[in-house]
Amino acid sequence: MPVITVDGPKLTKEQKAKLVKSITKTASEIIKLPEQSIIVLIEERERDNVGVGGVLLSDKQPD
Amino acid sequence: MPVITVDGPKLTKEQKAKLVKSITKTASEIIKLPEQSIIVLIEERERDNVGVGGVLLSDKQPD
Amino acid sequence: MPVITVDGPKLTKEQKAKLVKSITKTASEIIKLPEQSIIVLIEERERDNVGVGGVLLSDKQPD
Amino acid sequence: MPVITVDGPKLTKEQKAKLVKSITKTASEIIKLPEQSIIVLIEERERDNVGVGGVLLSDKQPD
Amino acid sequence: MPVITVDGPKLTKEQKAKLVKSITKTASEIIKLPEQSIIVLIEERERDNVGVGGVLLSDKQPD
Amino acid sequence: MPVITVDGPKLTKEQKAKLVKSITKTASEIIKLPEQSIIVLIEERERDNVGVGGVLLSDKQPD
Repeated sequence: MPVITVDGPKLTKEQKAKLVKSITKTASEIIKLPEQSIIVLIEERERDNVGVGGVLLSDKQPD
Repeated sequence: MPVITVDGPKLTKEQKAKLVKSITKTASEIIKLPEQSIIVLIEERERDNVGVGGVLLSDKQPD
Repeated sequence: MPVITVDGPKLTKEQKAKLVKSITKTASEIIKLPEQSIIVLIEERERDNVGVGGVLLSDKQPD
Repeated sequence: MPVITVDGPKLTKEQKAKLVKSITKTASEIIKLPEQSIIVLIEERERDNVGVGGVLLSDKQPD
Repeated sequence: MPVITVDGPKLTKEQKAKLVKSITKTASEIIKLPEQSIIVLIEERERDNVGVGGVLLSDKQPD
Repeated sequence: MPVITVDGPKLTKEQKAKLVKSITKTASEIIKLPEQSIIVLIEERERDNVGVGGVLLSDKQPD
């Protein structure tokens, strides 16, 4: 039942598949629960919707 | 002030209205707080953005 | 894989069991996914850690 | 490392920039951690995806 | 209905009260919604339960 | 700025340190962002506060 949420930038489907596979394997080994019990939720957040140090990412590092 | 978040698949507006109505009623009765104090947030997550057992939902059960 | 989070006050174990059972049943019927796929996470939040309208719950309604 | 999430309505980019700036400043002063360590995540939620008192916002206050 | 979550270090009750008051006021003014509609949830996270750059906070900056 | 939340069972400090180290490394490589930008939040949830398939974990697998 562990639920792992990754809140980050836009990803390709290939990146998502790798991320889910690797994080699930790692978490399963360390937490000692079967991979099948682990859920990973990916949240792709726009750079307009993230602030670091008081400034939007989209104002810091223009695409 | 209870805040209930439902993170799941795409829903029709009718499903959302039913879900909000039923979950609010149920939670209000069991927690013993007025329905008016309960907020439900619905997060519709793409099948590319959910992994179960290390595999993306979109790779498990193609639409 | 729906993940439902209930963020609210302290509950008894009986309330938690009822809440999980009822919300899971309701969500399963409306979303049309098996009950077995639904995870409910309960977050019991102290009244010092919730603000409504700018005031902590613990300052509004003393226990 | 504080992570502040604002789950609310659609905002303009100007509103987001102001929100991130003000909340980061306020939190930094009160929590006594540098602004640079504070992350703000903005979640813009559709009115179909929020229920208050058992009713969707989109059914309460039509746009 | 905006829900603002502050995930950070342990705070005194005075800090919490100030944080809730200030963030609610700021958010209300910028989002243009009444203060009464805003909920703030405070999550006080142990330093053992936060990692930055791959290292637990409790291993970085011993109390 | 990716924020990764792991919501699971009680862990030892050693497990937490390993989890943070491994997940940060993995995520950094796949997402192509520096490890230093990644935050991991660990939420240790009581078995009374998790339901799977409508039943509390604490009623399924007694400790």
